[in-house]
Amino acid sequence: MRVTVIGSVALDTVETPYGKREDVLGGSASYASLSASFFAPVNLISVVGTDFPKKYLAAFRKRDIDVTGVETKEGKTFRWKARYPADLSHAETLATGLNVFTDFKPSIPPNISSKDSLLLANIDPELQDRIFRSVKPEGIVACDTMNLWIEREKKALTRLLKKVDLFLLNDAEARQFSGEENLMDAARHIASKGARMVVIKKGEHGSLFFSGGVCFVVPAYPLQAVKDPTGAGDTFAGGMMGYLSRRSKITDRDLRRSLVYGSILASFAVERFSVDGLLKTSPEKVNDRYRHFRSLTKF
Amino acid sequence: MRVTVIGSVALDTVETPYGKREDVLGGSASYASLSASFFAPVNLISVVGTDFPKKYLAAFRKRDIDVTGVETKEGKTFRWKARYPADLSHAETLATGLNVFTDFKPSIPPNISSKDSLLLANIDPELQDRIFRSVKPEGIVACDTMNLWIEREKKALTRLLKKVDLFLLNDAEARQFSGEENLMDAARHIASKGARMVVIKKGEHGSLFFSGGVCFVVPAYPLQAVKDPTGAGDTFAGGMMGYLSRRSKITDRDLRRSLVYGSILASFAVERFSVDGLLKTSPEKVNDRYRHFRSLTKF
Repeated sequence: MRVTVIGSVALDTVETPYGKREDVLGGSASYASLSASFFAPVNLISVVGTDFPKKYLAAFRKRDIDVTGVETKEGKTFRWKARYPADLSHAETLATGLNVFTDFKPSIPPNISSKDSLLLANIDPELQDRIFRSVKPEGIVACDTMNLWIEREKKALTRLLKKVDLFLLNDAEARQFSGEENLMDAARHIASKGARMVVIKKGEHGSLFFSGGVCFVVPAYPLQAVKDPTGAGDTFAGGMMGYLSRRSKITDRDLRRSLVYGSILASFAVERFSVDGLLKTSPEKVNDRYRHFRSLTKF
Repeated sequence: MRVTVIGSVALDTVETPYGKREDVLGGSASYASLSASFFAPVNLISVVGTDFPKKYLAAFRKRDIDVTGVETKEGKTFRWKARYPADLSHAETLATGLNVFTDFKPSIPPNISSKDSLLLANIDPELQDRIFRSVKPEGIVACDTMNLWIEREKKALTRLLKKVDLFLLNDAEARQFSGEENLMDAARHIASKGARMVVIKKGEHGSLFFSGGVCFVVPAYPLQAVKDPTGAGDTFAGGMMGYLSRRSKITDRDLRRSLVYGSILASFAVERFSVDGLLKTSPEKVNDRYRHFRSLTKF
């Protein structure tokens, strides 16, 4: 099955203790679709400006990502500028330029099927909901988000989380959304709002899955060289959904493995700037790391 | 095999968002020996003052912990007073009273065998080394420590870590000791100083084992009710060593499982104040949680 990914495609300027990159490919949908593409063909829905480098569209296509749904609008591509401190613990946003995302009304290209999996990557929940209603998805649907939307659009987000199968957010966001300090309490609170399955991403500390009575935890793949954490969560979500989209019936084991694959893909993403870690790895390396992860964690 | 534990026995006054306890049983050796006692009989070596409540010695004895090595000295028991913030992320020490620990020269009771496992729980490394030299251990030896000794006694600690089999410290301490931000780099650095096996405890984020080419990671048991994190690391060390002391030949699998048991025991410790979580659980509950942990983490 294909995966439809809607989210942002951006040009990022990022500075970490390991270097600086200007106007490089970023955005939640870029990371998520490149990550999902390791498991399934992807349809990408987003918008870019006339300044968007053609080479990035070519990079998507090379990974079997259909960019028919990437509209080119008069104006500038969405820009994000950020800096990370020495411990890489959080991004300090220096500037955000919505640009062509202002008043973006995505149209669903005819090649999108309601039978495909749908990943509503991090973007305004009103936009995520609009896509949801247009696609009328019959496959698995995941929704990722960020602190900004919890702060500004909590109602819309709460309405949306009832509709999707899988709701993803990071540990700080889970605490923010729920008002609970403890992550198990936070997951339980979010589930009580109607989320069928909740995934809390803890960055370098792994992830936590929660659904009714079922809970599981996955550590992060231990890395020595983290250069740029940008997009780790988007990559995680994309890897998870890519993996799940290949299953006709999703079992408990598939869900667990999808978290591990999400974690593995994220480990490649953060080893290099921008999406370079995803572009430079291969399905073989992903599977090698999966096997290594198994040996790292079995007991 | 028995486990010999040397470290502090203290009376703690602790305040967390969940309550306050005054002059309750604490100290690295108290947590470590109660934890180890789930797997093996323990010899405890420490010192207390004449004000130390008899009921605590009785609690140790009830768990097959031999307290012949706990000297009662004229004066007051070691005191520690601390407060935790809402997120329980760290203890803010309000007061420390070394009291009878000032100039403590432990004598090794005749029932201590060099064949037993030896856990040098968190205490001045000079004292740890003195015990090491007196016991002349032939079994497995572990050494735990804290930020204070890395700051003040790094040389003594570095000499000691070459002698022991297993060196334990938490994530902040591993960064402090090594000057490395990344924990894999930190573990590698510590190993390069002569530690055969390094365990980095990450609290609610689990633990990391590193030895030469072998590495493994264990998430923490996810808890909903953490009331008092005091002694979690000591409990972890005690559980690990208790488990390992039962093995005649320690395999890779034993090491992995010892980390899991350390993690499980710590999960009980932090659910209640002082050592109450360890006193109120049972080997059956520990094994139930071990099985649950397996189901939480398998993929």
